[in-house]
Amino acid sequence: MASQIFAPDVEQVLDVSGIFVFALSGSLLAVRKNFDVFGMAVLAEATALGGGVIRDLIIGAVPPVAFTNTGYFLTPLLAATVVFFLHPEVTRINRTVQTLDALGLGLFAVTGTAKAHDYGLGVIASVALGLITAVGGGVIRDLLAMETPSLLRWDRSLYAVPAMLGAGITAALIAFDDLNAVTGTAATLVAFGLRMLALHYNLRAPRAWRRGSSQTGEA
Amino acid sequence: MASQIFAPDVEQVLDVSGIFVFALSGSLLAVRKNFDVFGMAVLAEATALGGGVIRDLIIGAVPPVAFTNTGYFLTPLLAATVVFFLHPEVTRINRTVQTLDALGLGLFAVTGTAKAHDYGLGVIASVALGLITAVGGGVIRDLLAMETPSLLRWDRSLYAVPAMLGAGITAALIAFDDLNAVTGTAATLVAFGLRMLALHYNLRAPRAWRRGSSQTGEA
Amino acid sequence: MASQIFAPDVEQVLDVSGIFVFALSGSLLAVRKNFDVFGMAVLAEATALGGGVIRDLIIGAVPPVAFTNTGYFLTPLLAATVVFFLHPEVTRINRTVQTLDALGLGLFAVTGTAKAHDYGLGVIASVALGLITAVGGGVIRDLLAMETPSLLRWDRSLYAVPAMLGAGITAALIAFDDLNAVTGTAATLVAFGLRMLALHYNLRAPRAWRRGSSQTGEA
Repeated sequence: MASQIFAPDVEQVLDVSGIFVFALSGSLLAVRKNFDVFGMAVLAEATALGGGVIRDLIIGAVPPVAFTNTGYFLTPLLAATVVFFLHPEVTRINRTVQTLDALGLGLFAVTGTAKAHDYGLGVIASVALGLITAVGGGVIRDLLAMETPSLLRWDRSLYAVPAMLGAGITAALIAFDDLNAVTGTAATLVAFGLRMLALHYNLRAPRAWRRGSSQTGEA
Repeated sequence: MASQIFAPDVEQVLDVSGIFVFALSGSLLAVRKNFDVFGMAVLAEATALGGGVIRDLIIGAVPPVAFTNTGYFLTPLLAATVVFFLHPEVTRINRTVQTLDALGLGLFAVTGTAKAHDYGLGVIASVALGLITAVGGGVIRDLLAMETPSLLRWDRSLYAVPAMLGAGITAALIAFDDLNAVTGTAATLVAFGLRMLALHYNLRAPRAWRRGSSQTGEA
Repeated sequence: MASQIFAPDVEQVLDVSGIFVFALSGSLLAVRKNFDVFGMAVLAEATALGGGVIRDLIIGAVPPVAFTNTGYFLTPLLAATVVFFLHPEVTRINRTVQTLDALGLGLFAVTGTAKAHDYGLGVIASVALGLITAVGGGVIRDLLAMETPSLLRWDRSLYAVPAMLGAGITAALIAFDDLNAVTGTAATLVAFGLRMLALHYNLRAPRAWRRGSSQTGEA
């Protein structure tokens, strides 16, 4: 199976790490929105597992892995607990959190694409589902917190494009029957690297083309 | 089957009662938001049936019971009709509506947990799905009305915790093979009781821990 | 199969046309909200395909057709590209876009109802799913853009009622075993006609009944 890119133990460790850091971002938003501890847990779960749940519902992998792997389900609660007691400290290491988040973004784009392909979806659909796996949780997080999804906003650095790149490379590797632990890691790192560049240089995607006018002043 | 806690006729009556009162809360919010009669019907349906639909999609029980049991589907339309003509009166008996809502909360937490377990989910996942069954519709209601989900807000009395308690007791009863009409009713009443206490004493969940500062003044 | 109302080639052309014009409305909203080009693509996809994806998840047709028919998936990207370069022109022909949107509304209500019935759902559930197919994408579009769903708002002309009428006629035609290309087209045109009347005369649905007070002044 293409989705078995890494050895099961390795994949489990990687997945749990990605889930943990995604859950941190959900919990931190809940703190900023002044939600209670239960709202922190809900946003942690939704951010960390939401993208994978949507992917699994669409490809027909029910119940979604988020509901069958207890470790995946409990990890966001651990992240919410950490943020509950230590949110000023977690906020202070924001740079580290963003770096780990970029790794999770790349990882979920690659593994999500591979899992969708395993369930028989075509190349384009698999890339779309890799993207949904990587960014879907963040959209659900923002909707629950009544914020415009940062994914869609012009004034945020590139987030979806790195995930699309990682998913696209993965789909190409599958097509050439060349997806394995080494190439899968490489695809993850390419997505990670582009995301880090976007953060560092504040790279943005363009807005709709405005003839004869500047692109500024409307954000 | 664990989900057959009550005799079918009894369960049907209980479910329809819970659906009706959940639908009242959806219709009333639609009136407050100045939606038209169609918006009232949509919010009634989404509030009353949304949690169960999410549960059924996740456990793979498709089509969801909301789309196969015509009585379940039509009940919210009846509630919307009542609110259309009598919303000042329904608002005036708010205390009664909240009491019935607390009963529905407990009931759906218990039956949702049992149904998820019947479909082969583990203990923790079943509790999570019992919770989703009980509170999911309210979250969808708030999102459609562009309001911060009251479930997540710090300044609202405990709502999810009673549902979690009812779901947890149900899971324990299943584990000890002891879930039946009597114990299921007891679990429902425990959740109901805690919710009524939360309403009466305005019990709230804490927010993230703030060292060296008071917890007030930011809501 | 009732869902094979039209010859496959004809249905494909009709569907893609409806998807294209729904995607235009999503892309245009993204421009108004100042989203970047990626946000335009997401809103185009969600608006055009969201209703059908929800329908397919509920009836158990996974993966949803939006993920198996590459043409369906790529069409919204084409619409987003057109809007990217030509959004002032597309906005200027708003009347034409609304007319095509009304045709898409009728078409998806009819085909959605027929597909739900094919998957074994009852009359009322099939009508509900025809309605969800036609209007679900627009609700997702509005939620992602943090706008109150125009479907629910009192101050917008009738949108759901034409779709319900088209879906209801389709269900009746199925019940009498009389659904074919001619009658299916007629049902589509009835929904289309009512939507055009609603646009032209600004027909609205009533809000909740207020005894002894006028219905105005609160929007």
